[in-house]
Amino acid sequence: MAGVCVNHHSMTRRGALLGGVALATGLAAAATATPATAAPVSTRRGIRDLTHPLGPAFPAFSPGEEASRRTVATIADDGYFMQEWRIVEHIGTHVDAPAHFAPGGRPATELLPAELVVPAVVVDVAARAARDPDTVVTVDDLRAFESRHGRIPDGAAVLMHSGWATRVDDPDAYRNAGPDGGLHFPGFGAEAAAWLLRYRRIRCLGVDTLSVDPGVSADFAVHQLLAGADRYGLENVADLHRIPRTGATVFVGLIPYEGGSGGQARVLATW
Amino acid sequence: MAGVCVNHHSMTRRGALLGGVALATGLAAAATATPATAAPVSTRRGIRDLTHPLGPAFPAFSPGEEASRRTVATIADDGYFMQEWRIVEHIGTHVDAPAHFAPGGRPATELLPAELVVPAVVVDVAARAARDPDTVVTVDDLRAFESRHGRIPDGAAVLMHSGWATRVDDPDAYRNAGPDGGLHFPGFGAEAAAWLLRYRRIRCLGVDTLSVDPGVSADFAVHQLLAGADRYGLENVADLHRIPRTGATVFVGLIPYEGGSGGQARVLATW
Repeated sequence: MAGVCVNHHSMTRRGALLGGVALATGLAAAATATPATAAPVSTRRGIRDLTHPLGPAFPAFSPGEEASRRTVATIADDGYFMQEWRIVEHIGTHVDAPAHFAPGGRPATELLPAELVVPAVVVDVAARAARDPDTVVTVDDLRAFESRHGRIPDGAAVLMHSGWATRVDDPDAYRNAGPDGGLHFPGFGAEAAAWLLRYRRIRCLGVDTLSVDPGVSADFAVHQLLAGADRYGLENVADLHRIPRTGATVFVGLIPYEGGSGGQARVLATW
Repeated sequence: MAGVCVNHHSMTRRGALLGGVALATGLAAAATATPATAAPVSTRRGIRDLTHPLGPAFPAFSPGEEASRRTVATIADDGYFMQEWRIVEHIGTHVDAPAHFAPGGRPATELLPAELVVPAVVVDVAARAARDPDTVVTVDDLRAFESRHGRIPDGAAVLMHSGWATRVDDPDAYRNAGPDGGLHFPGFGAEAAAWLLRYRRIRCLGVDTLSVDPGVSADFAVHQLLAGADRYGLENVADLHRIPRTGATVFVGLIPYEGGSGGQARVLATW
């Protein structure tokens, strides 16, 4: 497995070199510095946002549960700008805490920092999902992944890339309901989830769809397995094709809602 | 400056060694594994949560703006548990995006990943704040910090530790309003903020209080300086006495609210 090294030596040196320039150009320079100059970029091999923007149009698992917002202060009237949101814990890129499905399971506040910064692997089923929206990640997929990329590390986030994130701006395509109202999108198979929990002691399952279970699931077996094992899920993850299949670390920035069944999370990958 | 190395070799080795055990003990072992066994802990020198839990009792800058929640589904009735929240973007541990104070400033969705994973320094004014709640971080404090800890790196999050976080469970003590209703808690002085923007090209100012400006501020000068320089603020940060004064990296897990003036953030430090 590759390591992730964030070394500040070069940044400090650069800071020292630029010190005189900054001194001369003053506040104007600070004000016009572009985000691209943020120092850590140059000291890390990669960083990627795996989070969808959260707005009222984001697709809900159950229609009617979309987020809503209102402006409560404006710069013109109040001197500052602020919005208020009404959101369920499971809209947008978010975590399912054990409490979501397990009676007595841990809520959002009880997931520890060490559980939220974990090695990530990406299992790619996009080609199959393009042909069959009901496809699931299987144990064979996991064995094939390990043959190519090496053993899935202990405590990992195992993330399904199905290509579904490209549909997120079209709620109908993302939910993909059939004539009977049933949903059709990929997820983890229950056997694969059980195998990962049993033999790879994973920390988390993540998907680029609305649910760790496939849309057709009637029993939410993967949700039940994860919560029963005191592990968490990550749903509506973005841009999984843009990070390495193995070797990245994911930061899962779960909002620690009191009593939370889960909640919104900013998810970033570095490598 | 110290570097931060997250090396997965030992974890992978441990995973291989434990493979047979996990195989033998099966799903029960996965279900009973404690969070403390999360692999990355052993491969990192430190990790710390700098985020307060978010609930209805969290102190608001303006009373009446506290978060509220309701239960929308229960395991007994619905098979799963879920809450809905009504929250302003500036409650709990949160980011002030440039759009909060700068007309045309960048909203939450436009802060880049590289701006959200940055080196941190902690400036400790707790002893002075215990005597004077209106104290501010001064340029002299910053010079004294650098004399002891070295130059503040380019692109840093500069975080004030005032000891105020111990008051967070008592909104009256945290807001600390005087007889005239004016608030009294520490913050950054405008001169110190301007100095950091001009000479250290910082990315962010953070505080363990309700505002980057001191409570007594009438003009929100530090907010104006930060937003005007296209930089962000971090408010209600927790546990700053538990991370190194220099050498940590903070991950600012800002929820990317569309059009957001800022928003809730999970803030973690690693070193």
